[in-house]
Amino acid sequence: KRQGFSEVVFGEGKTAEQIISIIKALQLKDKSVLVTRISKEKANQVLEACPSFAYNEVAKILFWKDSDQDSFFEGYIAIVCAGTSDLPVAEEAAVTAEILGCKVRRIYDVGVAGIHRLLNNIDEIQNATVTVVVAGMEGALPSVVGGLVSHPVIAVPTSIGYGANFNGLSALLTMLNSCSSGISVVNIDNGFGAAYNAALIHRLIQKGAKHNENALS
Amino acid sequence: KRQGFSEVVFGEGKTAEQIISIIKALQLKDKSVLVTRISKEKANQVLEACPSFAYNEVAKILFWKDSDQDSFFEGYIAIVCAGTSDLPVAEEAAVTAEILGCKVRRIYDVGVAGIHRLLNNIDEIQNATVTVVVAGMEGALPSVVGGLVSHPVIAVPTSIGYGANFNGLSALLTMLNSCSSGISVVNIDNGFGAAYNAALIHRLIQKGAKHNENALS
Amino acid sequence: KRQGFSEVVFGEGKTAEQIISIIKALQLKDKSVLVTRISKEKANQVLEACPSFAYNEVAKILFWKDSDQDSFFEGYIAIVCAGTSDLPVAEEAAVTAEILGCKVRRIYDVGVAGIHRLLNNIDEIQNATVTVVVAGMEGALPSVVGGLVSHPVIAVPTSIGYGANFNGLSALLTMLNSCSSGISVVNIDNGFGAAYNAALIHRLIQKGAKHNENALS
Amino acid sequence: KRQGFSEVVFGEGKTAEQIISIIKALQLKDKSVLVTRISKEKANQVLEACPSFAYNEVAKILFWKDSDQDSFFEGYIAIVCAGTSDLPVAEEAAVTAEILGCKVRRIYDVGVAGIHRLLNNIDEIQNATVTVVVAGMEGALPSVVGGLVSHPVIAVPTSIGYGANFNGLSALLTMLNSCSSGISVVNIDNGFGAAYNAALIHRLIQKGAKHNENALS
Amino acid sequence: KRQGFSEVVFGEGKTAEQIISIIKALQLKDKSVLVTRISKEKANQVLEACPSFAYNEVAKILFWKDSDQDSFFEGYIAIVCAGTSDLPVAEEAAVTAEILGCKVRRIYDVGVAGIHRLLNNIDEIQNATVTVVVAGMEGALPSVVGGLVSHPVIAVPTSIGYGANFNGLSALLTMLNSCSSGISVVNIDNGFGAAYNAALIHRLIQKGAKHNENALS
Amino acid sequence: KRQGFSEVVFGEGKTAEQIISIIKALQLKDKSVLVTRISKEKANQVLEACPSFAYNEVAKILFWKDSDQDSFFEGYIAIVCAGTSDLPVAEEAAVTAEILGCKVRRIYDVGVAGIHRLLNNIDEIQNATVTVVVAGMEGALPSVVGGLVSHPVIAVPTSIGYGANFNGLSALLTMLNSCSSGISVVNIDNGFGAAYNAALIHRLIQKGAKHNENALS
Amino acid sequence: KRQGFSEVVFGEGKTAEQIISIIKALQLKDKSVLVTRISKEKANQVLEACPSFAYNEVAKILFWKDSDQDSFFEGYIAIVCAGTSDLPVAEEAAVTAEILGCKVRRIYDVGVAGIHRLLNNIDEIQNATVTVVVAGMEGALPSVVGGLVSHPVIAVPTSIGYGANFNGLSALLTMLNSCSSGISVVNIDNGFGAAYNAALIHRLIQKGAKHNENALS
Amino acid sequence: KRQGFSEVVFGEGKTAEQIISIIKALQLKDKSVLVTRISKEKANQVLEACPSFAYNEVAKILFWKDSDQDSFFEGYIAIVCAGTSDLPVAEEAAVTAEILGCKVRRIYDVGVAGIHRLLNNIDEIQNATVTVVVAGMEGALPSVVGGLVSHPVIAVPTSIGYGANFNGLSALLTMLNSCSSGISVVNIDNGFGAAYNAALIHRLIQKGAKHNENALS
Ligand SMILES: Nc1ncnc2c1ncn2[C@@H]1O[C@H](COP(=O)(O)O)[C@@H](O)[C@H]1O
Ligand SMILES: Nc1ncnc2c1ncn2[C@@H]1O[C@H](COP(=O)(O)O)[C@@H](O)[C@H]1O
Ligand SMILES: Nc1ncnc2c1ncn2[C@@H]1O[C@H](COP(=O)(O)O)[C@@H](O)[C@H]1O
Ligand SMILES: Nc1ncnc2c1ncn2[C@@H]1O[C@H](COP(=O)(O)O)[C@@H](O)[C@H]1O
Ligand SMILES: [Mg+2]
Ligand SMILES: [Mg+2]
Ligand SMILES: [Mg+2]
Ligand SMILES: [Mg+2]
Ligand SMILES: [Mg+2]
Ligand SMILES: [Mg+2]
Ligand SMILES: [Mg+2]
Ligand SMILES: [Mg+2]
Repeated sequence: KRQGFSEVVFGEGKTAEQIISIIKALQLKDKSVLVTRISKEKANQVLEACPSFAYNEVAKILFWKDSDQDSFFEGYIAIVCAGTSDLPVAEEAAVTAEILGCKVRRIYDVGVAGIHRLLNNIDEIQNATVTVVVAGMEGALPSVVGGLVSHPVIAVPTSIGYGANFNGLSALLTMLNSCSSGISVVNIDNGFGAAYNAALIHRLIQKGAKHNENALS
Repeated sequence: KRQGFSEVVFGEGKTAEQIISIIKALQLKDKSVLVTRISKEKANQVLEACPSFAYNEVAKILFWKDSDQDSFFEGYIAIVCAGTSDLPVAEEAAVTAEILGCKVRRIYDVGVAGIHRLLNNIDEIQNATVTVVVAGMEGALPSVVGGLVSHPVIAVPTSIGYGANFNGLSALLTMLNSCSSGISVVNIDNGFGAAYNAALIHRLIQKGAKHNENALS
Repeated sequence: KRQGFSEVVFGEGKTAEQIISIIKALQLKDKSVLVTRISKEKANQVLEACPSFAYNEVAKILFWKDSDQDSFFEGYIAIVCAGTSDLPVAEEAAVTAEILGCKVRRIYDVGVAGIHRLLNNIDEIQNATVTVVVAGMEGALPSVVGGLVSHPVIAVPTSIGYGANFNGLSALLTMLNSCSSGISVVNIDNGFGAAYNAALIHRLIQKGAKHNENALS
Repeated sequence: KRQGFSEVVFGEGKTAEQIISIIKALQLKDKSVLVTRISKEKANQVLEACPSFAYNEVAKILFWKDSDQDSFFEGYIAIVCAGTSDLPVAEEAAVTAEILGCKVRRIYDVGVAGIHRLLNNIDEIQNATVTVVVAGMEGALPSVVGGLVSHPVIAVPTSIGYGANFNGLSALLTMLNSCSSGISVVNIDNGFGAAYNAALIHRLIQKGAKHNENALS
Repeated sequence: KRQGFSEVVFGEGKTAEQIISIIKALQLKDKSVLVTRISKEKANQVLEACPSFAYNEVAKILFWKDSDQDSFFEGYIAIVCAGTSDLPVAEEAAVTAEILGCKVRRIYDVGVAGIHRLLNNIDEIQNATVTVVVAGMEGALPSVVGGLVSHPVIAVPTSIGYGANFNGLSALLTMLNSCSSGISVVNIDNGFGAAYNAALIHRLIQKGAKHNENALS
Repeated sequence: KRQGFSEVVFGEGKTAEQIISIIKALQLKDKSVLVTRISKEKANQVLEACPSFAYNEVAKILFWKDSDQDSFFEGYIAIVCAGTSDLPVAEEAAVTAEILGCKVRRIYDVGVAGIHRLLNNIDEIQNATVTVVVAGMEGALPSVVGGLVSHPVIAVPTSIGYGANFNGLSALLTMLNSCSSGISVVNIDNGFGAAYNAALIHRLIQKGAKHNENALS
Repeated sequence: KRQGFSEVVFGEGKTAEQIISIIKALQLKDKSVLVTRISKEKANQVLEACPSFAYNEVAKILFWKDSDQDSFFEGYIAIVCAGTSDLPVAEEAAVTAEILGCKVRRIYDVGVAGIHRLLNNIDEIQNATVTVVVAGMEGALPSVVGGLVSHPVIAVPTSIGYGANFNGLSALLTMLNSCSSGISVVNIDNGFGAAYNAALIHRLIQKGAKHNENALS
Repeated sequence: KRQGFSEVVFGEGKTAEQIISIIKALQLKDKSVLVTRISKEKANQVLEACPSFAYNEVAKILFWKDSDQDSFFEGYIAIVCAGTSDLPVAEEAAVTAEILGCKVRRIYDVGVAGIHRLLNNIDEIQNATVTVVVAGMEGALPSVVGGLVSHPVIAVPTSIGYGANFNGLSALLTMLNSCSSGISVVNIDNGFGAAYNAALIHRLIQKGAKHNENALS
């Protein structure tokens, strides 16, 4: 496997038939299969043909996990978001991370307009190994979180907003221009991508010292 | 006077000669004269011809105040900014407000990347009547301040930043999309405009109950 | 309450069920409850469960006011708009301000293309404490109003227009670049935000001299 | 001559030598020669070689008019602008129109922030045959003028402004989205183009009834 | 009447009821009534209540003309467009001009990709008093026409195109940057505005010498 | 050699020393060496160290050609441009094509504002194998040329223009949206790239039938 | 025929009736007829009236070819694309090229994220005479292909993507800025245009030496 | 220390005096001090006052490291870039990472236009723990690298390019839209930020299992 993880299928723009044939093939060679951006209707069609799969409606993710696959690491990824409208993207990140074998803690509804709710939850965020911060509108949350933690922050702008938000452009620019160090950014609404990055980091940590030897041998 | 305040001269793009002739005329009819966006060189030329004026180099403001003019109100405007690069805009706001007769308190260097410095100063901000928040880069500071105070916040994006900052566009969009209520926005780098708005609000408060009678008579 | 006002619910993207459970909780602790951006269909569902609420269809606002709550101030907010297409945003502002306890005067249909209609109504605008100006298309109205009044103007660009209007961007830029002093701007179509700002100013005026003492004590 | 007028040379990006050779050739076949966008330095070089020319420094126009050429029409073009920074563009328009044989009246310093100065001069504008309106910053002036006159208005956005002005984009969009009928727009800072259009209209009027016959014969 | 023409109603975003009540009032005081941007469905509803009106489906214009109103001028406006997709905008211009009392000649399907079709029709265009050029995609037609005629050209970009067309932005920029003199531009898809400008020019020509006296008296 | 042509050095941002060491190495292994975007000053420094090279100041190209290298094909590339300001880009294309061994014919100063000059030269353009069209401002020339020839047209937008030109964006969009078939586009000011493409096509033609055999063997 | 090829009808925005009447006329004078961007529904309507036509649903192309028309050249065009979502555009290109008489080889599903799949197919691409590269998302494929082949590459950005893709703008900019020489670009989703260019090059090659004589005679 | 690393000073826009006083203070409490974006001139002034510092001219970084500070981890960060123009950004990243205590391997001049140079170096990249990919122009390199490695890739767009590059916007969009998983992005030219992220990941790996206990205790 190219990336060390099972392959991931981007469901948007594929028919149920296409998805069914792809994931049946993947089940034969991988220990988990993940389809993102798949609507409830399409998922239901696929589930009839592939009953071993499960569907998460908020995250719009269809997945299957070989039962003997084990979580590989004790640390956890914090998934932080501001409001209820960012939930689908946050859940795309959370469910992706879990399927990739990571522990996840959800710290939701902690937007910057009420900074004390964030501060009340800051310990749980600081103790994570990586934090994924999901925010729409002005997208200011990663800057504040980034200043409070000393681990990598992966920022996900969402397309939530109206007017001068320009479908997430506002949040995207905010995050790219952040004054806090330790923040990197993925595409608008790309919860999957953030989680994938976080899981890669988790795997690196797990491999720990072993890696050193390999890398330098 | 149209706005209840002395007239203000926008210095950019005017020659020293033009400014001298304008402000000499204004001194005859107003109690204070304010020239914004005027470079040190040009200001020095003007000061030779108009020695009663003073120049603030950081704010790039040249001004004159009739000695018997009195501060009209006991409340104060909080001028909040994130870093040293935003100083010229913050000082344009602060000096403007002072010349328009307002008390000002400066709370500088309290960017969101270090939220605790802001929280340590939050009382002084909460006790203001109006807060002007100046921020460049991602421009997240007004959102956090707006959630912590219950008075109007006037947000000033600055052109400080690089790359995907696009000369202040990033901070501008952040502020327009803020989740916090009670925030309104002025043009990029327009410290003067924010202070002018704040001073208008101060004057309204001062006139207080008296206004009711007039307005409704 | 964080802002001194009851909490406001942003209805867009929330289900009727979510709204019902939120506002029932708010009714227990607040004296008024306000839901913005809620469609007629959704409002009707909510009204069945919450018959003490009322719905304003043009403003798309659902609200409830405890009967003994009193208007707190004799001054009024002028809500000015250009044409009939800007009405929903103007009414979002007007109804919000009223629910927040402010007197409101509506001066509608006074666009700059017929400047004399505006001038015929200018006294009523000049006597306001704050003016909210709502305009789409080229968004020139706040500049003209701003030059005629000596109190704060809060400008609301609307998304009304076509072609090079770019969903309100044209009006937004116009307002941010206004030559008139005393204008600040909120997001495109954000009538709520403008009214909220205006109400904050009204409250400051009402508290008047009292504030001084507190602020400086 | 293609357009019925003498040819016009765009001076920007041409050397003094290139300009000299072009205009010497034009003098042999035309009754007037016009070079726009030419700096003082370059103009001085050209004037040494072509002493029959004159240079207008504000308009940055170098021109020569055959003495026996006569103004062809009694009506006049009103050139209206808001502030002193728009002067170079307004003068480019005014001087161009004059060299093309039109009478011009300058109504300057009548920006929308002080609408009464405009109204005090409105008769002179209304009596023009065509009005060229030059405005930077928010560019709202053409909308107001357009609503007050019943002849064509040619709007020229200027690049004057800062921040969210984006080098004249703000004024350009304002003018394209104008609610007033009878307004058409030329490129940012294109005073020449506006005057050229106005002069074409003047010529049409002068030819009057005669045209009808020709056109339909 | 402000503009010397009957008032024009922008139909988009108004209900049939609103339109009926507005145009019934206008019929009492004007000699013609014009409603633009009105869909077939809405027009049919209005026609039932106002049977003296007629509807042009391509132009989406509903109008009524007092029978004794006379075309005021013998010259004609050329309406030029490139392809069949630009037809609705071209017809909005053509029908508007006719209702405003102008003669119109339609020269359609003469895009720059087949320059000879344009050249075959160039006499009819050159003999017009004003030409309205409607073009989508790259919007190059006005530049070519402008170089071939010596009267004013009013350019109308349309929103026809795909990809890097950005809903007409491409054609709009092309027209604003035209190398040909004598071109001015209106908003994307604004056939009405172009025709209104052209009609104003026609009226000026008709008044001819008479105007001179008035203007200068 | 990767592309079948000698390597090309992009001179911008390289020091004279860096260029000297690169081209000395290239001379040892190639039959021609080409440096683009090199200023006169830098070129003079290089020429002292590499006297076998020649410099073309308009094209800003420094080059050396092994004397025994032969032009490989009898057909020619037409390089068409509108005005004198586009000359540097047109010459970058022309000189590049010549150094890559192609015959070139220059048809300059044939902008769309004077379509007859273009038509007078159309035979020479139609007889070319490929045409490179260089245009700034509105960039309409490729559309007209494309409609008149039946061979490939490579369009080069230039950054020449002002105001709503946005440094060549206007011309770029025009060319991408062209209604004429057979046009492809390169980056703004990329005369080199257009010529390189044209030369690749020339080489294909030269290899003619021979290619078929190879390709299918 | 202007371009040496049969005329092509752009189906989008034309009714089935309009298309039927156009293609019936074209069948009388051309050897092949091609309608692009036509939906299945519309195509079925047309097919009833024109049963000699065939419809390709993925490419959305309706076409008819006179049986005695022969493929004119032994070389082939490589049509390369990254993923299944780019298929409709790739097929628009492929089917267009075939109808214009070219041999085509499809190398699909070779995106840059899995560079080895591309390298495994590189011989087939290198042996083509021209390559059309279709790519959405980040649009990086043409740069890689361009570096590996020594013939012309025509790049087609697609509108596939989300978030900061801005409907294909991202891929378009990538391709215009490519470091590889020999790449030219057509509009977003314009598979037709790329194929048309490639076919023009094919025809040039076929005519080979013959052209030289004609062109220079 | 907030981030676990010494504080970093952003040198741009600070005077030599300001920098001297900041870094003298930091030397007293930190084990290393890092100033980014500082010009040679300014650095020389600072070095006179702070002779224990060293300056890297390509990276524009001034730094000081306490001699007993030890590299904390055996793995290395690969810094990959395309061409010589991206060197300053790549070196900002490399030097930052080294000062933060990481081993770095530089793999430069491996742009996508010559994919084999990249493939020849791919082992060294694949054996890194994290890869920072720096690319200007079309910015395609991270997509290719991301597909070849199974560790996190941090992409840095640079502002290198011209025309439709728009100062790095093109490369930025490319990277945000990458098809390869495992890529996150920092601001244009922000080599520092990428290195900081990479160093945070390195520290996490080093702490390895230890972290688990802490995090979950
Ligand atoms: N129409 C509106 N436009 C912008 N912001 C609003 C609007 N209505 C409510 N809000 C803000 O959104 C917050 C509520 O968001 P939520 O928690 O999603 O209901 C409130 O505290 C208000 O500050
Ligand atoms: N004027 C130019 N515009 C665009 N690309 C160029 C230009 N000149 C050279 N190139 C390309 O840039 C590459 C050389 O880049 P470098 O290695 O930095 O010299 C060459 O292989 C050409 O493909
Ligand atoms: N899919 C397409 N994309 C872009 N241009 C096309 C397409 N199909 C046809 N065309 C062009 O559009 C012209 C036909 O336009 P029309 O006269 O509206 O049918 C043809 O001559 C082609 O040059
Ligand atoms: N080259 C750089 N690019 C982006 N951010 C930087 C750079 N150098 C330092 N920083 C950040 O800017 C902050 C310092 O800002 P200041 O307080 O103005 O010196 C540091 O904490 C870093 O997070
Ligand atoms: Mg941090
Ligand atoms: Mg608040
Ligand atoms: Mg005012
Ligand atoms: Mg008018
Ligand atoms: Mg003309
Ligand atoms: Mg052609
Ligand atoms: Mg190549
Ligand atoms: Mg990878």
